[in-house]
Amino acid sequence: MVRDGVREHVIDVGLQAVLTGGLNATGVKDVAEAAGVPKGSFYYYFSSKEAFAEAVVDRYARAGAEERAALLADTGAPPLARLRRAFEAYLPVFEATGYTGGCLLGNVSVEAADHSEALRERVRTAFTAWQASLRAVLAEAETRGELPDGLGADAMAAFLVNAWEGALVRMRAERSAEPMRLFLDVIFGQVLVR
Amino acid sequence: MVRDGVREHVIDVGLQAVLTGGLNATGVKDVAEAAGVPKGSFYYYFSSKEAFAEAVVDRYARAGAEERAALLADTGAPPLARLRRAFEAYLPVFEATGYTGGCLLGNVSVEAADHSEALRERVRTAFTAWQASLRAVLAEAETRGELPDGLGADAMAAFLVNAWEGALVRMRAERSAEPMRLFLDVIFGQVLVR
Repeated sequence: MVRDGVREHVIDVGLQAVLTGGLNATGVKDVAEAAGVPKGSFYYYFSSKEAFAEAVVDRYARAGAEERAALLADTGAPPLARLRRAFEAYLPVFEATGYTGGCLLGNVSVEAADHSEALRERVRTAFTAWQASLRAVLAEAETRGELPDGLGADAMAAFLVNAWEGALVRMRAERSAEPMRLFLDVIFGQVLVR
Repeated sequence: MVRDGVREHVIDVGLQAVLTGGLNATGVKDVAEAAGVPKGSFYYYFSSKEAFAEAVVDRYARAGAEERAALLADTGAPPLARLRRAFEAYLPVFEATGYTGGCLLGNVSVEAADHSEALRERVRTAFTAWQASLRAVLAEAETRGELPDGLGADAMAAFLVNAWEGALVRMRAERSAEPMRLFLDVIFGQVLVR
């Protein structure tokens, strides 16, 4: 129990460090210090920095999936309204960080997917799950006749995930909410309109 | 002349190293060795690693702008066909790298924009110039009545840049051309259709 508690704590602290500084710039020593554990014990909990990064990605993906599930759940609101809400929910989060940090899945894809098959598989799986959660809501809209012709729910779900990731890339160059607002305007004002 | 030639050579070698390995993982020592110059002389050409990275971003942005200008130039083809061609031209490039590497502007945004105001300004400027080159072609389509109502050329140009960057993030997680093909299908088959 204590062992699991410490490991979870190191993952929590490490997640923030990786989101703030990037994976390559985050040292095992820094994470251990920030978590208040001896550097040597870091390797008691994680066999390598890569194994630590895998745990961080999994934690981030699980938290994101839970938040999304709550936002996308049927509350009587139409499917496209719930979909929009699930993206809009990120805006205050990024406003609070001054439009830094971005999405850990995208960051790890950029920093590490070319170099670690294990991490690539982790982010790939997380993106696929995210896409599936959006597809379910888009399929609901499709059934109600609310999707434009020719846009299949699965392809559109993938496009939303990808375009959102790109909005976050540009957000960091601009340090502004504008790329996210543009995403919302184009997707919900132009693309997902019958 | 010799000095400039060596500096340009170090930037060339460094650009490939940064695109392959990422900015944080690319050491000054490695770049100097790969370029065949003593590490000490690296700092004769660049005051810091950040100054080197700025030169790499500028080089990448300039080369990209030249390639795009040639692809977007009026050759008798309609504007939206030229626009599509300018994106399609990246596909064989990424096929050759096994869908790794991505876009240096996006990579530096993710890795460094939060931490270096100079690099953030560099990538911001390069994205703005890219967007302007796409806007010009979209404005031409607009004049010909080939853009759907409600999509302004400037907003659409920004959306294309951002969504493309996201397709490249996902490309690296999937190690596949699929996210780029999806971008082309959705943008040119659904969004930019009257």
